[in-house]
Amino acid sequence: MSDRNIYLKTVPVPEAVRLAKEALDRDELIRSELVPTHRAPGRVTAAPIYAKCSSPTFHSAAMDGIAVYSRKTFTAREGQAVELRLGTDYVPVNTGNALPEGTDAVIMIENVVQIDEHTVSIEAPAFPWQHVRKIGEDIVATEMLLPQNHTITPFDVGALLSAGIYDIKVWEKVQMTFIPTGDEILPFRDRPVPCPGEVIESNSQVFSALARGLAVEYQCTLPVRDREELLMKAIDLALDESHIVVVGAGSSAGSKDFTRRVFEKMGTVLTHGIAIMPGKPTLLAIAKGKLLVGAPGYPVSAVVCFEDVLTPIISWLSGKPAPKKGQIDVRLARRTPSKPGMEEVIRLAIGEVNDGYVGVPLARGAGMITTLTKAQGIARVPADSEGIEQGESVKVELFSPRESLSRVLMHVGSHDNTIDLLANALMGMGEQLKLVSTHAGSMGGLTALKDGNALFAGCHLFDPESGDFNFPFLEKYLPGEKVAVINLAIRHQGLIIAKGNPKKINGVKDLPREDVIFINRQRGAGTRILLDHHLKEGGINPRSIRGYDREEYTHMAVAANVLTGAADCGLGIHAAAKALDLGFAPLARERYDLIIPERHLEDPRIKTLLNLISSEGIKERINSLGGYETTLTGQFMEAGMGLGD
Amino acid sequence: MSDRNIYLKTVPVPEAVRLAKEALDRDELIRSELVPTHRAPGRVTAAPIYAKCSSPTFHSAAMDGIAVYSRKTFTAREGQAVELRLGTDYVPVNTGNALPEGTDAVIMIENVVQIDEHTVSIEAPAFPWQHVRKIGEDIVATEMLLPQNHTITPFDVGALLSAGIYDIKVWEKVQMTFIPTGDEILPFRDRPVPCPGEVIESNSQVFSALARGLAVEYQCTLPVRDREELLMKAIDLALDESHIVVVGAGSSAGSKDFTRRVFEKMGTVLTHGIAIMPGKPTLLAIAKGKLLVGAPGYPVSAVVCFEDVLTPIISWLSGKPAPKKGQIDVRLARRTPSKPGMEEVIRLAIGEVNDGYVGVPLARGAGMITTLTKAQGIARVPADSEGIEQGESVKVELFSPRESLSRVLMHVGSHDNTIDLLANALMGMGEQLKLVSTHAGSMGGLTALKDGNALFAGCHLFDPESGDFNFPFLEKYLPGEKVAVINLAIRHQGLIIAKGNPKKINGVKDLPREDVIFINRQRGAGTRILLDHHLKEGGINPRSIRGYDREEYTHMAVAANVLTGAADCGLGIHAAAKALDLGFAPLARERYDLIIPERHLEDPRIKTLLNLISSEGIKERINSLGGYETTLTGQFMEAGMGLGD
Repeated sequence: MSDRNIYLKTVPVPEAVRLAKEALDRDELIRSELVPTHRAPGRVTAAPIYAKCSSPTFHSAAMDGIAVYSRKTFTAREGQAVELRLGTDYVPVNTGNALPEGTDAVIMIENVVQIDEHTVSIEAPAFPWQHVRKIGEDIVATEMLLPQNHTITPFDVGALLSAGIYDIKVWEKVQMTFIPTGDEILPFRDRPVPCPGEVIESNSQVFSALARGLAVEYQCTLPVRDREELLMKAIDLALDESHIVVVGAGSSAGSKDFTRRVFEKMGTVLTHGIAIMPGKPTLLAIAKGKLLVGAPGYPVSAVVCFEDVLTPIISWLSGKPAPKKGQIDVRLARRTPSKPGMEEVIRLAIGEVNDGYVGVPLARGAGMITTLTKAQGIARVPADSEGIEQGESVKVELFSPRESLSRVLMHVGSHDNTIDLLANALMGMGEQLKLVSTHAGSMGGLTALKDGNALFAGCHLFDPESGDFNFPFLEKYLPGEKVAVINLAIRHQGLIIAKGNPKKINGVKDLPREDVIFINRQRGAGTRILLDHHLKEGGINPRSIRGYDREEYTHMAVAANVLTGAADCGLGIHAAAKALDLGFAPLARERYDLIIPERHLEDPRIKTLLNLISSEGIKERINSLGGYETTLTGQFMEAGMGLGD
Repeated sequence: MSDRNIYLKTVPVPEAVRLAKEALDRDELIRSELVPTHRAPGRVTAAPIYAKCSSPTFHSAAMDGIAVYSRKTFTAREGQAVELRLGTDYVPVNTGNALPEGTDAVIMIENVVQIDEHTVSIEAPAFPWQHVRKIGEDIVATEMLLPQNHTITPFDVGALLSAGIYDIKVWEKVQMTFIPTGDEILPFRDRPVPCPGEVIESNSQVFSALARGLAVEYQCTLPVRDREELLMKAIDLALDESHIVVVGAGSSAGSKDFTRRVFEKMGTVLTHGIAIMPGKPTLLAIAKGKLLVGAPGYPVSAVVCFEDVLTPIISWLSGKPAPKKGQIDVRLARRTPSKPGMEEVIRLAIGEVNDGYVGVPLARGAGMITTLTKAQGIARVPADSEGIEQGESVKVELFSPRESLSRVLMHVGSHDNTIDLLANALMGMGEQLKLVSTHAGSMGGLTALKDGNALFAGCHLFDPESGDFNFPFLEKYLPGEKVAVINLAIRHQGLIIAKGNPKKINGVKDLPREDVIFINRQRGAGTRILLDHHLKEGGINPRSIRGYDREEYTHMAVAANVLTGAADCGLGIHAAAKALDLGFAPLARERYDLIIPERHLEDPRIKTLLNLISSEGIKERINSLGGYETTLTGQFMEAGMGLGD
C-alpha cells in the first residue's frame, strides 16, 4: 500500500475553475470557423454581425388591397366617395408586393368597392404610408444584428437570412475525449452481464449526454486497462484532437489510482481534490495547452465534477456564460446533517404541496446514480455548515424548469409495487403526472402528511387491538386532520425465501434458528410493525434473530438480499418475491390504503390520481402483479372495515 | 379579386389545438422503435423500463482499505488495538472491489496501521456493512426504473446502462416537412441579393430550429411556385413521409392564397383563422391521417403559429407534456392598447431594474422578425382586453431562463451607433452583459429613468439658451433625482444626403425647396429638437418642409430612406451616413452623454459599463466609426461644460 496517493490540498470549486481558466490560453486554443447560417442555431458568434441588406428591401404592401397615391384620396368621406382608375390611380397589390413607383399607401381590400373592371371607389382617405412596410422597417443594411459571443437562436436565423447573411463566423465547438479506465469495467457496447467485481461502464455516456447539451463535440475511447503506459498512450492520442481530455476513474487515492502520476509526467497538475462531496476526487492538469481532467469513478461524483467544474470551463471556452440552473426556495422535509469543511451536494425529490415547494433529501451515496434520476434538483450545504434542519428553507438548483413541478405528485409513505404501477399509469393520462415517491414507511408517510410534506401517503398499519387498518393510527398521529382513506389493494405479506425453500423456513417460528439470517425493514415501516406483532404473538425475542438489525427500505431490496444469499429470508410482499422468482411463505393479508388530507382532494393532481384508481383497468393491472386482491380497490374506507371480508 | 378567400370563423388557439388532436389518431400515427440506450437522451419511453440487473451486482467496497469480518473487530478500542492477519482476517480492497466471501465490512485505509507484510492493526471496531455498497443498493433487478412517456435525461442513461439495459423502446420522432411557397420568395441556399418585390425565404429555417428543439425530424422542400397543381403534388409527396406537413405562406385571404382550396381538395379543413395576432392566418387540415398546416407568411405570425399551435400538437404526438416557458411578472413601461376580440402577443425587451422586472413593448408589426431577436419574452393581451396600461404588471413568458435577466443591461434613450459598439464590447467582457437598448429618443430616455424603467439613458439634448447639453433638461425633467452624467462621445450631426449631393442640399435653408423631400425623426428625439432649433434660428417654417411629418426612430432608418431615394435628406449622425456610404452636410457638434441615476452606480452591471467606457481601447473603436470626437469620452460631466472646447 506504499504506492498510495495523498490528495493535494483540496480547493473550493470556484478556485479549481479559476486555476484551469488561468492555465488555458483561450485565444490560442479555440479558433473561429464559418458555418452556414441555417446550421448555426446554438452556435456562438465569434464577431459582431452586420446586416448585408435591408428588410424589406423595398416599400411593400402590408395588406391585400390596392396601392394608391395618398394625395388623390384625401377628399374621400363617408357618403362622398372618391373613384379611382386602374393604373393611373391605383394598382391591386397582395401582401408583400412592392409598391408601384410613386404610390405611398395601401387601402385594405375590405374598404374598396369595385365599380367596374377598371374603377374602384373608396369612402375614406388613405394616410401617407398606411399599410406599407417601409424599406428597412425591420432591418437596415449595415446595422449590427448580433454582438460577438451571442448564442444563435431560431429567431436569429430568420433575421440573419432576411438580412442576406448566409454564413457566420462562430467559435469552433469545444472538443472533448473521454477515456474510461479500470480493469473491472465492462464496455457497455459489448452488452455485458456483469459478474461480481465487474461494473458496466456508463459514466462516459452520462458525460456524453451532458456534453452534447453544451454543444460539445464528444468522443469516447475504448476502456483502458489499469496500466500506466497504456493510459499515457491513450491520453497522448486524445490530446491531439481535443481541447479537453477526461480520464474516467483512477483519480482517487487508491493503490491503483495512478492518473495523477500520469498527469504529472505528461504536464502540470493544477489541483487534486476539490472541496465538495460528492466529487472530491477531481483532478485537473494542463498538457500541451489542453485541459486534462481526472473524473471520479462514482457516478454522482462524476456528475458533480462535470456540472460544477467542467461546465463553467466549457462555457468559457465556448464564448458563453455558464448556464444557470433555475432556482427556487424549498422547505426541507428532513434534517440533513453534513460534515463541515466540505460543501455537500444533496439530491432532493421536490414537489409543490400546499402552495409551497417541499424537498425530501434522497440517499447520500456517491455511487447511487438513481438519486439523480429521482431528484428534481439539488441543494448545497456550504462548507462551513453542519447541515440543514428540518423545515428550513434552502435554495435549490432545479434540473428542469420550475413550471414542470406543477406536474409532480408528491408521495411519501410505504413502498409497494403498485405505487410503481400508478407511476407508470399516471404518465399515460391526458394530463401527465410524475409520481415522485419517497419510501419512508407507513409511519414516515403519516409524519409527512402532518408536516405538510406530501400530497398523499401509502399506508398499511395494522392495529392488533381493533383488528383494523390505519384508522387507529390516523387518530393518534394525525389528530384533527380530516383525511380520506382510499384502498389501493389488499396485499399478501409473508417471508420471502430462496426458491425451493432449501432451509425449510415456513413461519416466524423459524427465524431464531442458528442457520437462518434475516433481513429486516427500517423502523416505522408497516411491514416491520407487522413482523413485531407476529413475533410478539409467537413469543419470539427479536434479539434472538440474526440480522434483525440489518435494515432495508423497500420490499425489493429485501428480496434482492435473499436472491443473492446475503440473507435467507425477510418479510415482504408477495409481488416482490414473484418479481425476483423467489419463494414465499404467506403470513398475513393487509390493506394498503392511500391517505389523502381532505384539503388536497380538490387538487387537480389528486383528482387525476383518484380517477385512475377508480378506473376499471387498474384492478386488472394490479392483479397481474400477483399477491394482491382488488375487492376494495378505489373505495373510500371507514374505521372498522378491516379487510371487508 | 373575385377569387379571394374569406376566413372561416376564427377559433381560439386552445380550440384549434383540440380540433387537431381529436382529428389525429395518435396510436395509429406514431410507432415505437428500439434505440441504443446511449443514443436515447431526449427520446421518450414508449413503455415502462424495468432493471435487468442490480447495481451493484455484488457487495462492494465503498472505500479503499481492508475488507474484514466485523465480528473479529468488535473488541478494538483506542489503546487496545486488534491485530488482523492477511487472508484469514483481512483482505486489501480498493473502492469498487467485490467483498471476499464472508467479509461484511471495510475499514478505511486511513484507519489501518501496517505492522508487517501480513499484519495490520486497528484501534476501532468495524460495524457490520460499514463502507460497503450492498447488492442492489442503487438498483434492484426487475424494479421499474422509468415509467412510460418519460423523456430520457443524461442521468437516466447512467442508470439504464448500470441496470444492464442496452436498448430501450421509445416513440419514433415526429416527422415534419415544410413546403415554402410563393413566386416572390428566393431560396436562401442560392445566396440571393433580393430585388424589389423579392423576399429571401427564411421561415423554413426558423421552423427547422424550433422543430429540432422539440426533437422533430425535419425536412424542407424546395420552394413551390404559386400554382395549385404544383402545391398539391408537393403536399402529396410530403404526406408519405411526414406526420405533419407545413405549407409556408399562402394561407391568408389574398387572391393568390389558395392553400385552403388545396387543403379542401386533399382532405378536411379543421379551422382557418385563429383568434390571435400575430398568427391569425393559420390553417389546419387533415389528410391521409396526417396534419396539414398552412403557416402564415409573416415571420412573427409564423412563429406564433409554431409555438402556440404546433408545439402542443408535436409534444402530444411525442408523448411529452407541452413545454412551459418560464414566467415572471413584469411592469410594463409603456401603455399598450390592443384591439378586443383577438388575443395579442406583445414582444418585450425585459430587464431587471431596481429589484423588479421592466418590460418595454417592441414594435407590433408581424413582419418584424427583429422584434423576436430583440425580445426577452412575450406578454399576451387577452381577447377581451383593450390593452395594458403603463406601469401595470403583466405575466411574461420568457425565451430564456429568468436567471439570464441578471445579465441584461437595460438602456432606454437616444439611438447612436456607439451604443451598438458598447453592446458588442460588453459581450466580450469577463462577465458578459447583454445590452438591451430601446430607442425612445433622449426625452424618452429621461422619462424612462424617471419611471424607473432603465438603468441608464443615452441623451444629447442641446439647450440653446445656456449653450449646454443635457443638464438644463435634467433639472426640468428629473427634479430631485441625483444622476451621474458621463460622456460617451462628441458626435457630428448633419444632413444625410445622397452620395455626390445631386440636389445640392447644403443646409437647413435648402429644406423648404419644392424638389426636396425630407425624412424626420420622431417627437422627443434630441435630433429633432436640434433640427427645430436650427429651423427657428434660420426662420424656417417646418410646415414648408415636405416630409417633415414622416418620422423614423433611428439614424440608420433615416439614412436608409436617403439611400433608397424615399427621401432626399434627413438629419442624422455622420456615422450613419458613413455606414451607408452617403453624403453628409455637417450642421452641429453635440455631446452624447450617458445619464445614470446615482443609485445605480453600485449595480455591478453599471460598474462593468463604466469600466468599459473608461478603458483606453474604447476611444479608438469609437473614432474608427467616423464623425466622433473622444476628448470627453468616459469623463463625468458637470453643468456648463458644453463641448469642453
